[in-house]
Amino acid sequence: MNEQTGVQQTWDMVIVGAGPAGLAAALNGRIREKSALILAAGLTPPRLQKAPHVKNYPGFNGITGEDLYERFYRHAQEMGVEFRDERVENIYPGVNFTVVTRGNQIYLGRTVILATGIQQARQLEGEQELVGRGLGYCATCDGPLYRDKDVAVVGETPEAEEEVNFLASIGRNIYYFPLYKGMVKVDRKVDVRRERPQAILGDDRVRAVALPDREIPVDGVFIIRTVAPVERLITGLHQEQGAITVDRTMATNIPCVFAAGDCTGKPYQIGKAVGEGLTAAQSAIHCLDNKPDA
Amino acid sequence: MNEQTGVQQTWDMVIVGAGPAGLAAALNGRIREKSALILAAGLTPPRLQKAPHVKNYPGFNGITGEDLYERFYRHAQEMGVEFRDERVENIYPGVNFTVVTRGNQIYLGRTVILATGIQQARQLEGEQELVGRGLGYCATCDGPLYRDKDVAVVGETPEAEEEVNFLASIGRNIYYFPLYKGMVKVDRKVDVRRERPQAILGDDRVRAVALPDREIPVDGVFIIRTVAPVERLITGLHQEQGAITVDRTMATNIPCVFAAGDCTGKPYQIGKAVGEGLTAAQSAIHCLDNKPDA
Repeated sequence: MNEQTGVQQTWDMVIVGAGPAGLAAALNGRIREKSALILAAGLTPPRLQKAPHVKNYPGFNGITGEDLYERFYRHAQEMGVEFRDERVENIYPGVNFTVVTRGNQIYLGRTVILATGIQQARQLEGEQELVGRGLGYCATCDGPLYRDKDVAVVGETPEAEEEVNFLASIGRNIYYFPLYKGMVKVDRKVDVRRERPQAILGDDRVRAVALPDREIPVDGVFIIRTVAPVERLITGLHQEQGAITVDRTMATNIPCVFAAGDCTGKPYQIGKAVGEGLTAAQSAIHCLDNKPDA
Repeated sequence: MNEQTGVQQTWDMVIVGAGPAGLAAALNGRIREKSALILAAGLTPPRLQKAPHVKNYPGFNGITGEDLYERFYRHAQEMGVEFRDERVENIYPGVNFTVVTRGNQIYLGRTVILATGIQQARQLEGEQELVGRGLGYCATCDGPLYRDKDVAVVGETPEAEEEVNFLASIGRNIYYFPLYKGMVKVDRKVDVRRERPQAILGDDRVRAVALPDREIPVDGVFIIRTVAPVERLITGLHQEQGAITVDRTMATNIPCVFAAGDCTGKPYQIGKAVGEGLTAAQSAIHCLDNKPDA
């Protein structure tokens, strides 16, 4: 039982991602009368919604991605799937899984299904080497370490601005590199730079951000992406070439953790994601049936 | 080139089976402008058509199996998939695959996708040991070997009656074991027995059919099933526990032969079959792209 939150529901399946794979997994779980919670930031898979004509999902020839998604979502709702608009930051195994969101909410799951979509994030040079050594992904979590220090934030999404402002309230020099178009609204203290960092520099720890013509010395770097790299979610999750390693039952290398959809690799197709989501749910149910009660 | 048939079309994909997996594979092939031919006996997957309410295919909550199948079929037709109502008997690898049907039609395919559905056939005792030694599955093919001999036919479907009558026209004593209900219309010379054979007996060759109380000596046995056991289709196809062995790309152990849907194992769900069909087609396309022109 989690001490911070008191008594709280334990879900049969906590599903990360609200795309076709996540929705299919959740509704298949509900058909078997398992409780299913979907956690997803924004609850809108942009790639599907932008598709003008979907021709390869059997049964709907030429439907818009938006209409198809609407039908998927409604179908899942009708089956009693529950949704929370939350970005998952970490998943800790245990008797049950403890799923921690960016907003520091905690959800407990007997099984976990990862349906996080395609890995679109290109890593910055130096990122992988320096993670945990001055490079982080959640300023609200680690920011307090940088009181009165110099920090850079690389933001793929306007959501990063909130984190930038939090850092501005405690740090010394804050550099912000927005990688999106449009207005940037941050504390006037922040040095906003419309440049793309070339690399994060440092040996033992972060030392500087490399720009094409110069280096900016910093004590820490935060990278705020639209999608959290999935390897950060659960320690030890196996991947190959950017895709989560799964077997034919959609099992990952971590017991009772399954994956489905684009995050398991090509082909990046709705029907493939749906099929994998259904299969992942079946396998999760099998795992539930064989799990001691917690 | 096949001498018997003269010049004939070679299909990019020959797909065996017209269920959700076969249709999904075919339409995905067509999207990539590959020619796709579906071969299936009757073209009606009975398990899907009989489902009163399908709840686990995202986008259609509670649709009847018949309506969903109709939509799948129309979708495939709209994409230019071609269909032939043919029962596939054998597939021979080569530069291209030679696909032979019960009606002795020959189709050539650059790739093959097996979407034959669930393996419902229970084998008879002795069947596996005696196949090719007096036990066969196609009387029209092997029947002439039994001129003036005694032959038994085990028929799961009324389609078998035609084969029984053919054997009656050339053989001596013909025993027919219809395993279906309803009228049996065969040549009056045929000894129709409403019993289920217990086993096929013989050491080197078929010797007799075993009934609960006695044995009927025969020179040959034909078993006519609704679904041909898939291991007979292609020599050397790997299976495990009745399911075709596939990897995550839906590749079987035979190059350029893929499998999708229920024939690859559980879960037996429409969406899983669809996803695998789509994936199999992508993999077949990859195979086509890397294959020397034949």
